[in-house]
Formats: sequence, structure tokens, C-alpha cells
Amino acid sequence: MPESPARDASRLTIADVAKAAGVSRTTVSHALNDRGQVDPRTRERVKQVAAQLGYRPNLRAQRLRTGRANSIALVSSMPISVAGGPSRLGFMMEVAGSAMEAALKQGLALVLVPPLEAADTLLDELDIDGAVVIEPAAEDRNVAQLQRRGVQVVSIGRQPEGDEALPYIDLQGHETGRILLQHLAEQGAGQIALLIGTQPRHSYIDMERAYRAFAEARGMPVVIARADEAGGETAGQAACRALLEQHPAIDGICAPVDAFAVGVVRQVQAQGLRVPEDIKVVTRYDGLRAQSCQPALTAVNLHLDEISTLAIDLLFEHINGRVRRRVVVGPSPSLVARASSVNPAGN
Amino acid sequence: MPESPARDASRLTIADVAKAAGVSRTTVSHALNDRGQVDPRTRERVKQVAAQLGYRPNLRAQRLRTGRANSIALVSSMPISVAGGPSRLGFMMEVAGSAMEAALKQGLALVLVPPLEAADTLLDELDIDGAVVIEPAAEDRNVAQLQRRGVQVVSIGRQPEGDEALPYIDLQGHETGRILLQHLAEQGAGQIALLIGTQPRHSYIDMERAYRAFAEARGMPVVIARADEAGGETAGQAACRALLEQHPAIDGICAPVDAFAVGVVRQVQAQGLRVPEDIKVVTRYDGLRAQSCQPALTAVNLHLDEISTLAIDLLFEHINGRVRRRVVVGPSPSLVARASSVNPAGN
Repeated sequence: MPESPARDASRLTIADVAKAAGVSRTTVSHALNDRGQVDPRTRERVKQVAAQLGYRPNLRAQRLRTGRANSIALVSSMPISVAGGPSRLGFMMEVAGSAMEAALKQGLALVLVPPLEAADTLLDELDIDGAVVIEPAAEDRNVAQLQRRGVQVVSIGRQPEGDEALPYIDLQGHETGRILLQHLAEQGAGQIALLIGTQPRHSYIDMERAYRAFAEARGMPVVIARADEAGGETAGQAACRALLEQHPAIDGICAPVDAFAVGVVRQVQAQGLRVPEDIKVVTRYDGLRAQSCQPALTAVNLHLDEISTLAIDLLFEHINGRVRRRVVVGPSPSLVARASSVNPAGN
Repeated sequence: MPESPARDASRLTIADVAKAAGVSRTTVSHALNDRGQVDPRTRERVKQVAAQLGYRPNLRAQRLRTGRANSIALVSSMPISVAGGPSRLGFMMEVAGSAMEAALKQGLALVLVPPLEAADTLLDELDIDGAVVIEPAAEDRNVAQLQRRGVQVVSIGRQPEGDEALPYIDLQGHETGRILLQHLAEQGAGQIALLIGTQPRHSYIDMERAYRAFAEARGMPVVIARADEAGGETAGQAACRALLEQHPAIDGICAPVDAFAVGVVRQVQAQGLRVPEDIKVVTRYDGLRAQSCQPALTAVNLHLDEISTLAIDLLFEHINGRVRRRVVVGPSPSLVARASSVNPAGN
């Protein structure tokens, strides 16, 4: 018969509950997990007895049995100098906010893996069923490490790699490039340069393709500069200095990495030129860094809340589902025009 | 002797490695985990054999043995109508960004638990060593649930409760109130009202205490309104309407919940009054909601990055340490003055 709540409930086993309820261990297990064929009244009684005893299942033993962690990881491989700064991991944390809600709807916990070298160990030890990687580079270390462990991975943004691409949410990077460049042209920029990172990421590749198509269609000379992402704003500033030295006619710069764009604005102003009157600047991610720049940066709304939810659902599908899509096209990016590229009234 | 890498490496056990390396299982375990007395050459050889076989330790079995999850949770119990909105969980995600880095330094993964009812199940099932709860209310459901499970909890901001308070990072809520009220007075507000939430949270309690002390020192009438946090901006707006009806002489409103403050600005403007000329408005958390409000809201820099790191370190101390502090005083809050309360030049 049920005793009073045990003091050390964690030591109680399923056998104790079975004994107290006068049923088999299997019946207890089925009743508590709402599985199997158990008479509803018996199920109720077992649950009551378990509650009275203060029995709690041993989660770790359960996991060992089911092989499920019910956790997924969110991983960013963007260096902290780009991911951090005033936006303090803005892109990743914006994704994380929506992703944790979407994960919860699937009964999954969301584990954050920061873009730091020390995270290597964590990636090896995390008890997870899957991972969402944000905009991985080709031959991304984190992706490789997770795949070695047999962890299911999907990415936000295509991983630029040959055949065996990860399932991914298409961020429509080409369209992002197109609307930014078209906006610059509409505002009067005729000599637009592109400043991207050195890593092989989909966003740079798509952006470059959009830029080349745009330049060709308008007979505009192609001017592409690259900077090391790890250098952050400083690298963007240095790249801008070189660009303006070599191509003094430039009147528009598209710098999809927000840290680079802030460096560009700083350099343009340091040279005594005005943004946007002399040089118009646009970036991609509409985070705090873009919004707090002086002048505020024109950017793109990537609809990261929807993107995050799509990514979690795609991952869940690959962990559990029978239907497994390879590519899910996200919502179309939309322009957020700001003072860094919009001509002041009267000009 | 070592074979070629096994296809299904997950089936390999420590016994397979022991056999291949010609040593005992204990030696393999010690060698792979860098524990115990193992000859350095043997250790190296065992590691090599394990790598060649493609052996990976069974994490879940290991956890069952060590009793450690090496994961901690970050939990917010603020309703989504306050935590969400334009700032999209701003406060929580700002804490999360720094907390995940601090956790990583301690070798811990950070799991996010969103402020949603469905998270109840997650809180029962998460395999975690501890949790940081953001500004819990008295008798907070999440805290109670975690404590029932025996999970170590620390809080950011004191949990207002009798004797058995959680270890916490002191957010200096009284000081936050003091600097906001003093600022309003300096800008010329003489009849300041306080608008806080209905839940018993430290931030409201400290703010109310600061407000009462301030009012008493200046002989200012005490006008305190409360709104339901779950009502978000709409609740703030309704509370402001009632406030202005009953106290038409009010020329300053301190609304520490940012959603309420946005509602206040909306209501003041809807009544044809001007912010800040007629009524000055200030809030507490300097997030996207405060920054994107029209006019932008005066707020307080709570130094959440440092606060988050202190919280993770305090939690780690309570999970592992011999010294266990109950209270850690965080950095002092500092004013971020903006257009919602600063008189335009020339006034």
C-alpha cells in the first residue's frame, strides 16, 4: 500500500512503485508513460501511487533506453568578431529566440553552442538528437565534427559544398543581393563595389553572383573586395580604404557583413566624405549594429523568426519523419531603407 | 590488433578497445579520460587504437555513471507578451548570449527554456545540473518545479520570498529606481507616477521602495498604478489612460516594464499630449523596444553581459564549489537618457 512520500525520492525505482501498487513493473512503466494496454483505472492508480511515493523516472536511464536526448543544438560558426560586437551575437540570438519556441512545440530543448574555439569539446560531448548550423562555410569544422558523431544536421542557408549538401533553409541570398543593388542604383549610385568575406559561405557566393549579373546588365565595372571575417569592423575599414584608393569613382558599397559595413562608414567619414551623399552604404542583416550605426544602415529583413521555425521543423522531420525535404525556401527578404543610402530630401 | 575503422562505431564498447589494445577495460577508461595512473606511452597507444577503431564513448552511459549532465538551463518566467514583442525576448536573449559564453568557459552547455506554458514538460525532462532563472516572482512556478526535481537554481535578481531565498545576482533595483526618478526630476517633472506589474517581482518591489522614498523626500504625492504583465503594451496603455484621468497633473511616468512604457507613450500621444514636453516617460531595460519607440525611451544600462557571467559563475560555484556565496552584487546600473524624457534644446 502507498506509504507517505519518501525522503529520498531519487532512490526510488520502478520496482518500488510496482510493489506499492501491486502490479508488474511493465504495467507501471506503461501506465506512467501512457503506453501499452493498461486498464484506465489501473493507470490512474499507478500514477497516484507514484505521485504519493514521490517517484520520478531516472531520466538518464530512460535516455539510455530510448536513445533520445530530446535536445537539439543551435550552432554558429561565424567568428565572434563578426557575431559579437554591439549586436552581441545578434543574428544567432535572434534565431535562437524563435528557434527555442519552435523546438519546444516539438518537445525539444534548444542548446546554444557559441562561436568559440572552446566549443569543440562541447560539440563532442553534447547529448543531442540534431543540430541547426547557421550559415556554415564549405568544409565547416562544426558541421564535420557533428557529422562524425552521427548527429543529424540541417543548416540555415545552403552549405556551399559539392554533392552531399546538408538539408537547408534557402535564405534566397541572390534575391537579397538583387534588392540591395537595385536600391543603390535607384538612389543614384552608378559605381557600386562589393565587399564580402573570404570564407566560402553561401551568402557571399549568392551575393557575388547577384552582383556580377547586376554589373553585366548595366555595363558597370566589377569591383569586388574581400576581407577576413575574423578582423571584424577593422578589417572592413581597411578594405574600404584600399577600395577607395584604387577606385576613387566608387559611389556605392554593398557590404553584406554588418561589421564590415560599419567599418566602411567609418572609413568613408574618416576620409572627409559623406554617407550617403558621396558614398551610399548597404548591408544585409538588420540587427542592432545596422540600426545603431551613424547614419543607420540600410539592410534587409531576412524574416529570421520564420526562418528559424522552418529550420527546427526541417530538423525534426529529418530526425523523425518519413518525408524528408532537402530544401525549404524561406520567406522573401525585404528591403529596410535607411539614411546610409537614401538621399536626403531635396537632393 | 587495430582493425580498420568500424562501420557502426556506435556499437563499439570499451571492451573492444581493451581487446584491441591488449590492456584492461579500466586502463582504457583511465587513458581515454586522462584519469588514474596510466603510463604515458600506454595512454597514447590506447587513444590511438580507440581513434583507429572509431570508438566513441557512450555519453549517456557515462552520464548515468558520473551523474553529471554538463548542461545548465536558462529560464525566464516573464510572460511572452512582455518578453516578446519587437524586442523578441530581448532581455532573455541578451542574457543568453553572454551566459552561453560564460557557461562554455566552465565546460557547460546552455539550454534555453522559453517563457511558455508548454515549457513545463521540458522543465521536468531536461537533463541539467542547474538553472539560472531570470527575475523570478515570489512562488515562481518554474523555480518550484526545478527545486522539486532537486536542480540547483540561482536567479538574476532576488526572488522575493521569505527565508529560503535562492542564491542570486543583486540587480540593484533600488538604485535603478533612484537614478530614473532623479533624472525625471532634473528634467523638470514634479508629479511623477509609477506604473509597475502585478506580480511580486524584485524589480517592482525595489522600484516601489525607491519611489516611495523619493516621493517622501520631496513631499510628492504617491501615485502607483499596476497592470497585468500578460497584457503587454495594451495593458500599459489602459493603465496610463486611467492614471491621467485620475491624476491630470502628472508630468512624469516611470514604467519599468518596457512594454508598459511603450503603451504609456502611445496613450499620451493619443490624448494629444506630447512626450517629453507634457509628460516625460522612462523605462528600465534598454532593449530594442526602448530604442525603437517614438520618441526613443530613456532607460537604464543594466550591464547584462557582466550580470550573466556572474550568474553562471555563481551557479557553477553552487554545483561544484566549497565556497558558496548567497548574494553577488552586480555592476551599478547607469542611465541612458533619450528623447522620451530629455527636454528639447531651448526649453
